[in-house]
Amino acid sequence: MQKISALQKARYGYIPKLPPVIQEDLSKIQAQLGEPTEAVADREELKKLFEKTYGKPIATFSRGSNPDASKKRKVGVILSGGPAPGGHNVICGLYDALKKANRESVLIGFKNGPAGILENEYIELNDKIINDYRNTGGFDIIGSGRTKIETPKQFEQAFKTAQEQQLDAVVIIGGDDSNTNAALLAEFFAKKGTNIQVIGIPKTIDGDLKNQYIEASFGFDTATKVYSELIGNIERDAISSHKYWHFIRLMGRSASHIALECALQTQPNICIISEEVRAKNMTLAQIVDQITDSVVKRAEKGYNYGVILVPEGLIEFIPEVGNLIEELNTLLAKEAAEFEKLEDTKAQIDWVSSKLTGRNKDVFVSLPAGIQAQLLMDRDPHGNVQVSRIETEKLLIEMVATKLKKLKAEGKYNGKFSAINHFFGYEARCAFPSNFDADYCYALGFTAFVLIANNLTGYLASVRNLSRPASDWEAGGIPLTMMMNMEKRHGEMKPVIRKALVELDGAPFKTFASQRDEWAVETCYQFPGAIQYYGPDDVCNQPTKTLKLEQETE
Amino acid sequence: MQKISALQKARYGYIPKLPPVIQEDLSKIQAQLGEPTEAVADREELKKLFEKTYGKPIATFSRGSNPDASKKRKVGVILSGGPAPGGHNVICGLYDALKKANRESVLIGFKNGPAGILENEYIELNDKIINDYRNTGGFDIIGSGRTKIETPKQFEQAFKTAQEQQLDAVVIIGGDDSNTNAALLAEFFAKKGTNIQVIGIPKTIDGDLKNQYIEASFGFDTATKVYSELIGNIERDAISSHKYWHFIRLMGRSASHIALECALQTQPNICIISEEVRAKNMTLAQIVDQITDSVVKRAEKGYNYGVILVPEGLIEFIPEVGNLIEELNTLLAKEAAEFEKLEDTKAQIDWVSSKLTGRNKDVFVSLPAGIQAQLLMDRDPHGNVQVSRIETEKLLIEMVATKLKKLKAEGKYNGKFSAINHFFGYEARCAFPSNFDADYCYALGFTAFVLIANNLTGYLASVRNLSRPASDWEAGGIPLTMMMNMEKRHGEMKPVIRKALVELDGAPFKTFASQRDEWAVETCYQFPGAIQYYGPDDVCNQPTKTLKLEQETE
Repeated sequence: MQKISALQKARYGYIPKLPPVIQEDLSKIQAQLGEPTEAVADREELKKLFEKTYGKPIATFSRGSNPDASKKRKVGVILSGGPAPGGHNVICGLYDALKKANRESVLIGFKNGPAGILENEYIELNDKIINDYRNTGGFDIIGSGRTKIETPKQFEQAFKTAQEQQLDAVVIIGGDDSNTNAALLAEFFAKKGTNIQVIGIPKTIDGDLKNQYIEASFGFDTATKVYSELIGNIERDAISSHKYWHFIRLMGRSASHIALECALQTQPNICIISEEVRAKNMTLAQIVDQITDSVVKRAEKGYNYGVILVPEGLIEFIPEVGNLIEELNTLLAKEAAEFEKLEDTKAQIDWVSSKLTGRNKDVFVSLPAGIQAQLLMDRDPHGNVQVSRIETEKLLIEMVATKLKKLKAEGKYNGKFSAINHFFGYEARCAFPSNFDADYCYALGFTAFVLIANNLTGYLASVRNLSRPASDWEAGGIPLTMMMNMEKRHGEMKPVIRKALVELDGAPFKTFASQRDEWAVETCYQFPGAIQYYGPDDVCNQPTKTLKLEQETE
Repeated sequence: MQKISALQKARYGYIPKLPPVIQEDLSKIQAQLGEPTEAVADREELKKLFEKTYGKPIATFSRGSNPDASKKRKVGVILSGGPAPGGHNVICGLYDALKKANRESVLIGFKNGPAGILENEYIELNDKIINDYRNTGGFDIIGSGRTKIETPKQFEQAFKTAQEQQLDAVVIIGGDDSNTNAALLAEFFAKKGTNIQVIGIPKTIDGDLKNQYIEASFGFDTATKVYSELIGNIERDAISSHKYWHFIRLMGRSASHIALECALQTQPNICIISEEVRAKNMTLAQIVDQITDSVVKRAEKGYNYGVILVPEGLIEFIPEVGNLIEELNTLLAKEAAEFEKLEDTKAQIDWVSSKLTGRNKDVFVSLPAGIQAQLLMDRDPHGNVQVSRIETEKLLIEMVATKLKKLKAEGKYNGKFSAINHFFGYEARCAFPSNFDADYCYALGFTAFVLIANNLTGYLASVRNLSRPASDWEAGGIPLTMMMNMEKRHGEMKPVIRKALVELDGAPFKTFASQRDEWAVETCYQFPGAIQYYGPDDVCNQPTKTLKLEQETE
């Protein structure tokens, strides 16, 4: 038996809180179905694609009668994509509900992501296994993976496994893409004339799977608390040592939700929001100017230090860089043979500079050599630039330093600028879930079973009213097709769940925007410290600032 | 008034624990002095240098009578060097003791490190200020700095300030260098015929200021807990995602205490210990082979992922690299003019390759180009290579990847190797102190005052029996000269406190060494999670594994 940490042992004893309505006997929880729903856009196309499952009503739960609940069932569960804190608790909640309804029911976990159902690789979950993972971080109970279920062949494979296993339902824990696939799988099973149900669970630390009905994806709370702990520590280092400007890039893919939440928690000098950059059509030079302006003003006050947050997706949200990347992708695809012949990076850069056109050429030439090289070297299997690999924080440091040198020569800046770069990502995806995520995830897993017990399919489990205590939470199900629209992917129009970006007229951004001018010049840092699982209520049971601002509880 | 985080507010209410003997009325705490002591080496030279303060006895405290305790006093305190969690509590403990003895006594804080006493820049500390910093991280209450007090002129300046301020004592919170300077300052004041006392406090997250009498430097506990939180999270990510080998470089300067403690807490696949590398005269190639061996064996078991810890100081502990750096430093100093003329990095590398001799040349040529460039570019004001800037983890990744390619071509390896590099340092130096560090630091500050109240000078405050509960802790003072020897610094023999490196026959290393073969191949990760300030005792009140193993309480 592997030794475990003191915290892990203690967390086994934590009892997650459930919304009141699902604490009932399962045979007394009845789904209430409202009016048919519509997709957010492209309704006609989606109606055709989801012939069997389009337009289902929103489901809420109330006390009533559900004689079907205690039926013996077999359910399969899948973890899809990057890990997020709380995934294990989703499985624990699902397991506990299933076993509460009927001890004979069986939960199997497909191994290593969607590949598990394609290849019928699984383990049967039991009390022993489940108890070893309660309230822990990670997706290691059954493993995760990034294989998709999206081709006709893959749908057939999944169907074959489901039939062989005699599954009643499949629960898919994943982000927007995985839940899009969950919707397609639900439709596929329905078209096959089976009753195999599919329920999705909204997972992603990035926070970009949310809408009017899904208030938050799980893991966002914990991940932003871990990042904010580290940012706060670095801020406190900055005011103690007076030596460095820290440029911190934060995971979060396209959306800036993580950066925004961390900014609200830690009040850094600058936080760039990609969505604003795009909306205002800002150039790289403007972003550099914004940072430089803060550096200069703080230097005048004797503060030659600071903290800057940079969202991972920034680079492709700067319109001029986005255009450059687009031309680069086309160029390197079209003239791959010639490009491959070039003998070294310098030759590649020269060649590309000579081939690019107009403004794209100017932008490319203005970039530091290291970033030019990254743009040419780190390409994915399709030949596209891998934007997530680009060290935007280093790019900004270099460009700010250059600009400051110029200002110094002109007598407009007289400070010291020494910068340190950081990237925070993998540090938080598998943290022990905060009490919030432990509760929310357990409730989501439990809710998934209640949806199954009410014979629903094509739903995303939903727990709402999240900025309030769990005793006020409401559980139910949101039809997956309701969140979808059609978008171009790899040149083809596809049904997808619309990704939630930071809304510039939403309360979290507006709150940030109303304070940032002061933060840029003064030192207004806040130090949240490490996630606490015990202690005073406001220390260990706070939802994110994003949620509180969105729901006007802060 | 700045808004503060919920945790900071809660931590204000934490009451640090004190060793029983210093909980008495201060007028009843009497210092007991034992036999005269000797330095660890070079006794004759040290006797001459420390004419007035050499060989003082160890001080312990017991119940007795000290009528001097309630004398009105004025004390100055200095934070020196890099921040470490708990520094604020040292000042709070010192302040509380001083005020407990006599409400009229005054504590001033010299600003921004030793520079503050040189320039007589200070603030007077009062209840309001102190209460805003209780149990918080950072050194921002008065700021820190790296100016030294080491030249005759600087000693005179410090003396001038001390006289102008009419100080009774100066407390210096710092690492080995700063406490060496504290010893010299105590001697200087004594030679001047004054009674101005100097007391040192053992600070450094690196853990390298310890010996038979000083069991731990403060901050090591908290810092290793923060790093272990992050390492554990990354380990859990590795077993969830099955995608990456994570190479994690950890702060800690020359010594590998931090890496070793983190390894004991998290059980990674590999942890390199610099002291072992030097003792066994290991080559870079041997280290690469050790890592590669683990990668290959794990790949055979289907584990194409892992976690490797690399201490910051490794690069200079590899004898062949140390020799190379030495020749480089000499070469670049001697032929600086010619070197500066070279037009680009490639030309510099070629020129250096042609100038280096023998084995040093082979080693340099074998390094990846990026590392060659770092060796030539990042030099300190003396022209020396800045080893702390060298990204050893990237060097190892590149060399391991090269080796694996070779093995793959030979059919000896059939796995996937994708690596991610991390460096953890600034993330932890200003964390909220763990309960251990909060207690230990408060007790150190309090002890410093008891030493002052007993008219002692040239002592390091000492709190012992640290692996036991605070109710078993013992407080006292260790004469600074006792820990010193003579070492060569910048070509001159200087008195210095001997730096504590990892002892290869000590219990922490031996415990690690007895388990690491299994860790290298199997997955034995442990996940400590975030520092907890509340909750079950073994979750929030554990000392480091290093301390427990050294004191045989684990």
